[in-house]
Amino acid sequence: MKHAFPFSAIVGQSEMKSAMILTAIDPGIGGVLVFGDRGTGKSTAVRALAALLPPVSVVRGSATNAAALDDVPDWDRGAGDEIVDVPTPVIDLPLGATEDRVVGALDIERAITHGEKAFEPGLLARANRGYLYIDEVNLLEDHIVDLLLDVAASGENVIEREGLSIRHDARFVLVGSGNPEEGELRPQLLDRFGLSVEVRSPQDVEERIDVIRRRAAYDVNPEAFLQKWRGEDLNIRNSILAARAALPNIETKDAALRDCAELCLALGSDGLRGELTLLRAARAQAAYEGAPSITRTHIRSVAAMALSHRLRRDPLDEAGSSARVSRLMADILV
Amino acid sequence: MKHAFPFSAIVGQSEMKSAMILTAIDPGIGGVLVFGDRGTGKSTAVRALAALLPPVSVVRGSATNAAALDDVPDWDRGAGDEIVDVPTPVIDLPLGATEDRVVGALDIERAITHGEKAFEPGLLARANRGYLYIDEVNLLEDHIVDLLLDVAASGENVIEREGLSIRHDARFVLVGSGNPEEGELRPQLLDRFGLSVEVRSPQDVEERIDVIRRRAAYDVNPEAFLQKWRGEDLNIRNSILAARAALPNIETKDAALRDCAELCLALGSDGLRGELTLLRAARAQAAYEGAPSITRTHIRSVAAMALSHRLRRDPLDEAGSSARVSRLMADILV
Amino acid sequence: MKHAFPFSAIVGQSEMKSAMILTAIDPGIGGVLVFGDRGTGKSTAVRALAALLPPVSVVRGSATNAAALDDVPDWDRGAGDEIVDVPTPVIDLPLGATEDRVVGALDIERAITHGEKAFEPGLLARANRGYLYIDEVNLLEDHIVDLLLDVAASGENVIEREGLSIRHDARFVLVGSGNPEEGELRPQLLDRFGLSVEVRSPQDVEERIDVIRRRAAYDVNPEAFLQKWRGEDLNIRNSILAARAALPNIETKDAALRDCAELCLALGSDGLRGELTLLRAARAQAAYEGAPSITRTHIRSVAAMALSHRLRRDPLDEAGSSARVSRLMADILV
Amino acid sequence: MKHAFPFSAIVGQSEMKSAMILTAIDPGIGGVLVFGDRGTGKSTAVRALAALLPPVSVVRGSATNAAALDDVPDWDRGAGDEIVDVPTPVIDLPLGATEDRVVGALDIERAITHGEKAFEPGLLARANRGYLYIDEVNLLEDHIVDLLLDVAASGENVIEREGLSIRHDARFVLVGSGNPEEGELRPQLLDRFGLSVEVRSPQDVEERIDVIRRRAAYDVNPEAFLQKWRGEDLNIRNSILAARAALPNIETKDAALRDCAELCLALGSDGLRGELTLLRAARAQAAYEGAPSITRTHIRSVAAMALSHRLRRDPLDEAGSSARVSRLMADILV
Amino acid sequence: MKHAFPFSAIVGQSEMKSAMILTAIDPGIGGVLVFGDRGTGKSTAVRALAALLPPVSVVRGSATNAAALDDVPDWDRGAGDEIVDVPTPVIDLPLGATEDRVVGALDIERAITHGEKAFEPGLLARANRGYLYIDEVNLLEDHIVDLLLDVAASGENVIEREGLSIRHDARFVLVGSGNPEEGELRPQLLDRFGLSVEVRSPQDVEERIDVIRRRAAYDVNPEAFLQKWRGEDLNIRNSILAARAALPNIETKDAALRDCAELCLALGSDGLRGELTLLRAARAQAAYEGAPSITRTHIRSVAAMALSHRLRRDPLDEAGSSARVSRLMADILV
Amino acid sequence: MKHAFPFSAIVGQSEMKSAMILTAIDPGIGGVLVFGDRGTGKSTAVRALAALLPPVSVVRGSATNAAALDDVPDWDRGAGDEIVDVPTPVIDLPLGATEDRVVGALDIERAITHGEKAFEPGLLARANRGYLYIDEVNLLEDHIVDLLLDVAASGENVIEREGLSIRHDARFVLVGSGNPEEGELRPQLLDRFGLSVEVRSPQDVEERIDVIRRRAAYDVNPEAFLQKWRGEDLNIRNSILAARAALPNIETKDAALRDCAELCLALGSDGLRGELTLLRAARAQAAYEGAPSITRTHIRSVAAMALSHRLRRDPLDEAGSSARVSRLMADILV
Repeated sequence: MKHAFPFSAIVGQSEMKSAMILTAIDPGIGGVLVFGDRGTGKSTAVRALAALLPPVSVVRGSATNAAALDDVPDWDRGAGDEIVDVPTPVIDLPLGATEDRVVGALDIERAITHGEKAFEPGLLARANRGYLYIDEVNLLEDHIVDLLLDVAASGENVIEREGLSIRHDARFVLVGSGNPEEGELRPQLLDRFGLSVEVRSPQDVEERIDVIRRRAAYDVNPEAFLQKWRGEDLNIRNSILAARAALPNIETKDAALRDCAELCLALGSDGLRGELTLLRAARAQAAYEGAPSITRTHIRSVAAMALSHRLRRDPLDEAGSSARVSRLMADILV
Repeated sequence: MKHAFPFSAIVGQSEMKSAMILTAIDPGIGGVLVFGDRGTGKSTAVRALAALLPPVSVVRGSATNAAALDDVPDWDRGAGDEIVDVPTPVIDLPLGATEDRVVGALDIERAITHGEKAFEPGLLARANRGYLYIDEVNLLEDHIVDLLLDVAASGENVIEREGLSIRHDARFVLVGSGNPEEGELRPQLLDRFGLSVEVRSPQDVEERIDVIRRRAAYDVNPEAFLQKWRGEDLNIRNSILAARAALPNIETKDAALRDCAELCLALGSDGLRGELTLLRAARAQAAYEGAPSITRTHIRSVAAMALSHRLRRDPLDEAGSSARVSRLMADILV
Repeated sequence: MKHAFPFSAIVGQSEMKSAMILTAIDPGIGGVLVFGDRGTGKSTAVRALAALLPPVSVVRGSATNAAALDDVPDWDRGAGDEIVDVPTPVIDLPLGATEDRVVGALDIERAITHGEKAFEPGLLARANRGYLYIDEVNLLEDHIVDLLLDVAASGENVIEREGLSIRHDARFVLVGSGNPEEGELRPQLLDRFGLSVEVRSPQDVEERIDVIRRRAAYDVNPEAFLQKWRGEDLNIRNSILAARAALPNIETKDAALRDCAELCLALGSDGLRGELTLLRAARAQAAYEGAPSITRTHIRSVAAMALSHRLRRDPLDEAGSSARVSRLMADILV
Repeated sequence: MKHAFPFSAIVGQSEMKSAMILTAIDPGIGGVLVFGDRGTGKSTAVRALAALLPPVSVVRGSATNAAALDDVPDWDRGAGDEIVDVPTPVIDLPLGATEDRVVGALDIERAITHGEKAFEPGLLARANRGYLYIDEVNLLEDHIVDLLLDVAASGENVIEREGLSIRHDARFVLVGSGNPEEGELRPQLLDRFGLSVEVRSPQDVEERIDVIRRRAAYDVNPEAFLQKWRGEDLNIRNSILAARAALPNIETKDAALRDCAELCLALGSDGLRGELTLLRAARAQAAYEGAPSITRTHIRSVAAMALSHRLRRDPLDEAGSSARVSRLMADILV
Repeated sequence: MKHAFPFSAIVGQSEMKSAMILTAIDPGIGGVLVFGDRGTGKSTAVRALAALLPPVSVVRGSATNAAALDDVPDWDRGAGDEIVDVPTPVIDLPLGATEDRVVGALDIERAITHGEKAFEPGLLARANRGYLYIDEVNLLEDHIVDLLLDVAASGENVIEREGLSIRHDARFVLVGSGNPEEGELRPQLLDRFGLSVEVRSPQDVEERIDVIRRRAAYDVNPEAFLQKWRGEDLNIRNSILAARAALPNIETKDAALRDCAELCLALGSDGLRGELTLLRAARAQAAYEGAPSITRTHIRSVAAMALSHRLRRDPLDEAGSSARVSRLMADILV
Repeated sequence: MKHAFPFSAIVGQSEMKSAMILTAIDPGIGGVLVFGDRGTGKSTAVRALAALLPPVSVVRGSATNAAALDDVPDWDRGAGDEIVDVPTPVIDLPLGATEDRVVGALDIERAITHGEKAFEPGLLARANRGYLYIDEVNLLEDHIVDLLLDVAASGENVIEREGLSIRHDARFVLVGSGNPEEGELRPQLLDRFGLSVEVRSPQDVEERIDVIRRRAAYDVNPEAFLQKWRGEDLNIRNSILAARAALPNIETKDAALRDCAELCLALGSDGLRGELTLLRAARAQAAYEGAPSITRTHIRSVAAMALSHRLRRDPLDEAGSSARVSRLMADILV
C-alpha cells in the first residue's frame, strides 16, 4: 500500500479521528485505545494520520530515527552521516511478537562470529518519533503491554538483559485496538492509556454507501482519489502544526483545574491520572481550536475520551462508561 | 498424483466451485473458507482449479515464483536467468507447520558455515501467485491464521525476526477447509475470509453412483478420463480469462451499492468488510456471466457466500446463516 | 524373535486375518485399524502376515528399500549397487517417537562436522514397501496420526523442515491397534483408515486351550512348529499372489456400485470414502475368491470392516457399529 | 550398604519372596509388581535375592555385563578381555530418570570432541542379566513403563534416535513397587507384568518384634548376622539352581492346560497373557518343589500372583482381587 | 526524568512518607509494602526520597556501589580507583525480569570468548546501599520475592549457580507496591516485609486541585519548582541524618517491650517478627522526633504500619487490618 | 551473620531443640521436619546447633569436607593436602534450586574449554558431615525431596547423568521446615523423615518479652551476648559428645522392643519405620540422659516426635496427631 487512504476521507468516526489529532498535537497525553469491531478502519486511520503529518528529518539508516548525528547511539552501526526526510514512522506490533523483537536483544550473529556483545534493536527503536500500532492489544500478554506503556510513558527504552545495558530514545504514540468481547485489559493497564474511544460500524445506509463508494474510488484510482482529498488533509495538518506551536501558551485557569477535579471525584476514578490527562487533552483541544485558554467546552469535548476507560464498573448502572461521563458532566459542568 | 482430477468432472458442489472461480477471477475478494465433512473433495477441488488455470511464467528456480528477473529479490540465490512456464502453484500448509517454515527464517546452515545472515524462504514464498491450501484451518493456532490472513490481504510477507528484515511478494488465494464440529474460528478471523461455502455429501443415490463411477474411471485410466473432460475444463478456463479482462469495466451503479449496504445493515454484520466483499464478488460474478454491470441477480447469487460467515449467532433463530441471508434477500432485494 | 509365529496357526480372529489379507492384495484400500484388548495377538498377526508374504527385492543398504538402483535417492549414502532379497519390512512405531524420528530430519552430526545439510531418514523411509505397525494408535498425538495417514494415502513422504526439501517413496500399509477404552481417535482420523476390525479373547475353553497349546509348542521348538504350518501358510501366500494378478480384471457392474451407494446412504456415513473403500475391498475379496466380478456376497463379507468405523454414534441405538451395518445390509442387500 | 540383608532373614512376606524366587527360576514369567506401603522391605527383598543368587561371569568392564568376548558389542569401548565373576546386578531406576539415561543416548562429549556418533549406554544395559528395580512405578510416566516392559519382554534394547541405530541384550527381571493409593497403572501396563503381590506391615506384635530385633542385630554387627543366616540362604540358592535345571523337563498335561483356561475364562481376564503366565509360573513352582509335572496344587499356589492384577474391577464385588481368584479356584479346581 | 519530584511537595500520603523516612533512618526495619491504586504517586515517592537523601560515596564504576577500594570484589573489572559521590541508587525491578538478571549470572560472552567463568552482576548488586523498587510486587513469582526478601534480610547476595560461587554486599531497602485486587502475596511473604501502608487517591477536591497544580507547575518549569521546595526537603534530610546518629542511644524501657508483646499477642500475629519490627520502627520514630526513649506515642504512631499486614483475616470482623490494630491499641495501650 | 545466635538462648521451643540434639547424637535417626509459622526461629535453631557442635576436621578446600586425604575423590581438583578445622557445615537449599545444583552436574566450562567430562559438585557434597536445611520443604518438588531423602538415608550421592558416573559421601542431617497450611508432603515422604516437631509462637507475654529482649541484646552487642550464654552452650555440647560415645553401649531390652511394637500397632502406622525410628530416638535420649538402657520414660519422651507424622488422618478424631500419640501411650505404656 504505497499511498495511505486520506485521513479526511474517512467517513464518520469523528471521536477516533479527534483522539488521534490530539495526541499528534501533544504526545504527552499518552496512547490511544480504540475499542470496536474489526473492519471499522482503525488501522487505516492511524496510517492515514501518520501520512498526513509532515515528514520527519532523520539520520539516514538510523535504527532509532535519530534527528541529529549526535543522537545516534554508538551501537547503531547502520546509521550514515546525512540527514534525510522520511514519513512519520508507523510500526505494527504483530500479535506473536517476542519480547526480544520488541525491545531489542543481543545480536546473536555478531556474538558468534565476532565474539562481541552487539545490540540488535527492536520495534521500539523503529517506532521512535512515530506511532506504534497494536492490533488486538487485549490479546497481548500483560507484561508486554506493561512494558510498552512504561516505555511510552518514559520515552526511553532500557534494556537490561543478556549482559546488555543499553538505553535509547523511544518516544512514540501507542495506538492499541481491541475488541472487548475477546478478553479485557486489566484496569491497571487501561488506566495507563491516555485516551480511549469506541468505534462502531455506521448504522445509516447513506453513510455506509459513502464508505463503500470512497473505498471503491480509492481502489480503482488511488492517485486521483488522493488528489481530491489533499486539500482537506493539508488543512488538518496545518491546524495540528499551529496547535503544537500554541500549546505552551494556553492558559490554565483555576476554574478549569476545579472542573477536572470535581468531575473525576464524582466519577470515583482511581488515582489522579484521570485529572492530569483530562487537563492535557483539554489544553490540546483548546490549542487545536485556536483558543487562548481552556474552557468548559474544551473539557466537555474530551472528557469521555479521557475518563471513560478509568471508571469502575457499576453493576447497578447499565449505562455505558461514556454515557456515565456525559451524565455527570451535565450535573457538574452546568 | 501427476494429473489432477478434472474440475468439471466434480459432481455437484456448485457453490464451492463457484466460490473458487470467483476468487480466480478477482483474488482481491479474499480467501475461501470451505466448511464440511472430510471426504467431500475439498482438496481435490482446489487442485483441480489450479490445474485448469493457465500456467504462470516464472524465473526458473525462483523461490517466490517471480514473474520477471527484476522481481527476483537479492536473497534468492536459487533463481536462474530464464523464464519458464509452470502450473499455478498449490501449496499445502501442513497442520504442524511452524511459523518459521511458513514465513521463512534465518538459514541456520549458512549462519554456521558462512557466518552470514541468509534468508531461508518459507511456504508463503512458494505460494506466491497461486493457492495456499489449509486443511482443517480451525485446528491451526490463531496467531498463524492471523498471520496468513494478514499476508494474504497485503500480498506481501514481511519478516522481522532474528535480525532479518525482508519483505517479498506473497499474493495468493487462501483456501481453508474446516469441520465446524471440531473447533471454531474466532469471529475476528472468520470476518477476514472473503467467501465461505458449505459442502455436504450428496444425499442422492444416483449422484453418489456418479461420484464413485467417475472416481473409478479416473483411477483405472487417468489419461483417458482427463481427455474426456478437457473440453469442459477449457470452457471454464476461457470464461475465467474473459472475466478477468472484463472486470475493470464492469459498471457499479448506485442501486447496487445501496442493495449491498441495506442487506448488510439488515443482517447486522459488524464492520464494513461484508459490503465491500459482497460488491467485489458480485462484480466478479457479473464479469463471469459477461454482463456489463452488476445487477441484483449477481448480488443474489453471491450474497450467501459473502455474508453468511459474518453473521452473529442468533440464539432465537434456528435457521442456518445461509438461510437467514436468503430470507433477508427476499425481503430487501424484492 | 527370529521366526515369526505362522499366520495360519493363529487360532480364530478370522476378521482380522481377512482384513490383513485384503490390504496385502490391494494396499490402496488403506490402513487397518484393529480394536481390542492387549494380549489378543494383534502384533503377532501383522508380523506373521509379513513373514508369509514373498520377500521383496531391494538395493542392498537402501534406506527406503528401493527396488532398483534408479530409485535410490541421491541423499541415500548407504545404498550399495546390488539387488538382494529381504523379508517384507514391518516397522514398529514406538509410542514416544518424535516427529523427527518418524519423517526424518536434518542429520545433526553431518551438519556439525561437515557443515552440510544432509538428510537422516526416519521410520517412514524404512517402512516403504512394507508395514508400519502402531500399537495403541489412539495414544499417539493427533498430528502424528494425521501425518502418517497423509503419507500412507499419498505413498510419498514430503519433508519441508530445517531447510530440507526432500520427498521419497513411502508406500506402506498402516496397521494401528487400539483399545477404545483408553481414548478415542477423532472421527476425522477414523475415516481415513481403510478397514477396521474388532478382536476379542476367545470365549470358548477349547479354543483357549488351543491357543495355549500352540503357543507352548512354538516356544519349546519353533522350527518344528513352523514346519508343521508351512503348508497352510504357502496356500495363503499363493492365493494372495493370484488375487493381486487378477485384481485389474475384476469387473465392477452398476449393480455393485448401486449397492455400495445405497448402503452408505442408508448408514448416513459422511463423505464418500465409505463407498470407495467398500468397493475396493469387495473387489479384493472377489479376487481372493477367484471370482470374475464383484457380487453381493463379496460386498456383504467386507461391509462391516469397511464401514463400521465411519458411522456416527447413534445414542438411541445401543447396537454396536458392526451390528448396525449387518442389520442394514439385511434390509438393503436382500 | 556393602552386605545386603539376608533373604531368609526377612520376616514373613512369603508371597513376595515366592514371586521373586519364581522369576529367578524362569525370568520368562515376566516382571513382578509389588503393591504396598513404604517401609515394608520391598527394596530390601530384591537386593537380598540378588545377593543370594550365584555370581555371574562377565567380561570385565563390559557395559552390558556380556558373558563372553563375542557378546561385547563394538560400541563398548570400556570392555576388557578377561572374564570375571560379579554379583547379580540390581539396578535402581530413579524416579526422575530421563529416557536418555534409561535406554542410552548419543555420547555428547565424543560428538563434540571427536565429531563422531558414539553410544552412551543407559541403565537398561547395566541391568542385563540382573534385576531392574523401580520404586513407585506408578509415578513413572506411562511411556517409560511401556518402554521398560517392551524391553523386558523382548530381552533386547533397540535404540533408534539421534541417528543411532543400536540394539543390545537387555535381559532382566523388572521389579516394580507401588502404592495404589498414589496413582494407578493403566490396565494395559498391569497386564504386561507377569506376577503381582501385595505386602503389608505385619499385624502381629511378635512378628513386628522379630523384624525390629533382626534389623537391630544386623545394624549392630552385619557380619555376624550374615553368618547366622548363610545356611538358609544357601538352601534357597540351591533349590533355585536345581529348579532352573529341571524346568525344561516338567511335564504339562492337558488337564493343567484346561485348568488354566477355565480359571481365566471364569475370571473374565482380557487376552491370553493370564493363561500363559499362570502356566509358566506353575511350571516354575513345580520345578522348585522338585515335582515331575504341574499339578493343581502348583496352579493353586501361584494363581493369585499370576491373575489378580488382570481382573477388571467389579463394582458389585467388594472382595479384593486375590480373594476373587481364591473363590473361583474353590469352585473350579475342586 | 532528570530531576525527581520534591519529596515535600507530595500532597498528603503522610503514612507512606513516614514509612519511607523510618526505613531511611534504620534500614534494618525491613522493606516497605505499599498497597493501593495506580496513579497515587508510589513510584514518585521512592524516587523523591532517594533524591532527598545525601549522596553516597562510591568507587567510580563499581558494580556494587562499593564505599571503599577494599570493598571492591575481585570479579568487578569495571571499578576504578577513585571515590566519587553519586545519588542514592534507586533500582527498578521490571515485571519480566529473569532471576539471572536479578541476582547476576555467568557472563556468557566472556565464557565463550575467553573460556573463563566471569560473573555478570545483576540488579541486586546495583541496588546496594540504595533502594530496590518493585512495582506490582504481587505479580512477581513467589520464588523471586522470596529471594529478594532473603537478600534484603541478610544484606548479602549469594550466587551458587553454573559453577559460580560468589557473594557480594546487597544492602538495600525493598519497596514493593501492589494492588490487592490483582492477586495477593502469600502470608509467608507478607510477614517478611517490615512495614506496610495503604495509599488512596485524595477524596477532597482542594487536595486534588493541589496535586494537579503542583504537577502542572513541575511539568512546566521543573527547576523553579524544585527551587521552591528545596528548603523543606533539606529539613527532612537533616532530621533523618540526626535520627540516624541518635538511633543507638535511644533507650528501650521494659514497659515498651511489654506494650509491643501484649499488642501482638492480642492481635494473634504469627511468629515474633511483629514485635521485633514494631520495636525497631518505634525506636526510629523516637529518634526522628528527637526523643530520648521509646514512648507509647511512638509505638502508637507506627503500630498500624508494622502490624496490619501480619494479621490473619478474620471473617467475622469486617473492619480492615489497620482499624483492628487501632481498636486494640485503644484497649491495651490505654 | 558471623556469630550464630546461641542455642541455649533460644526461648522455649523445647521439643524442636530436643529433636535437633537427638539427631546430633545419632544422625541415623533421619531428618527432622519442623512444622510451624514463619518467624518462630527454625532457621536460627539449626544454625545455632551447628555452631554449638565441635568443629570438624577437613582437608582444606575439599568439596565434600573430606576427613582425610584418602577420602578425597579424584574429581575434586580444589582439595589441598592439609587438614584444617572448620565449623560444622550448614547448607541452605534455596527454594528454586535445580536438581543440577543439588546433586552436582557436568562442569560445562571444562567440557567446552578442555573437552573433558568433569564433575561440578552440588550442595549435597558441601552438606557432607553437616546439616542440609530446607525452608518450606513442602513447596519443593516431590522428586527433589525424594532424592534428598534417598541420599540422606544412604549417606551417598550417586550421579548418573550426562555420561557421568560418580558417587561421593553425603552424610548429613536433613532439616526441613514447612507450614502445613501451604501444601502438604505426600505420606510417602513424611514417613521418610525421622522426627517431626511442631513449633508455635509463645502465647505467654513474659516469654515473648524474653524473646524480644534477648534478640535486642544480641543485635546491639553480639559478642557480649554470646559470652553470656557460652557456658550453657558448652554444657549441651559436652552432653551430646558424651551421648555419642555412650550410644553403642545402651542396652535394648525386650520390653522396650515390645513397647515400641505395641504402640505402633495400636496407632496403625504403615510399615515398620515407626518402630525402628522410635527405638533409635529412645536410645539416643537414654544416652543423652546418661542412662544405661532404654526405659519407658525415654520412649515416652520421644514417641510424639517419632510417630506423629506417620499417622493416617482419622476423620472422626479431631485431636491432632501428637495428642493421639499421647492418648495411646497412656493406654499402652501404663
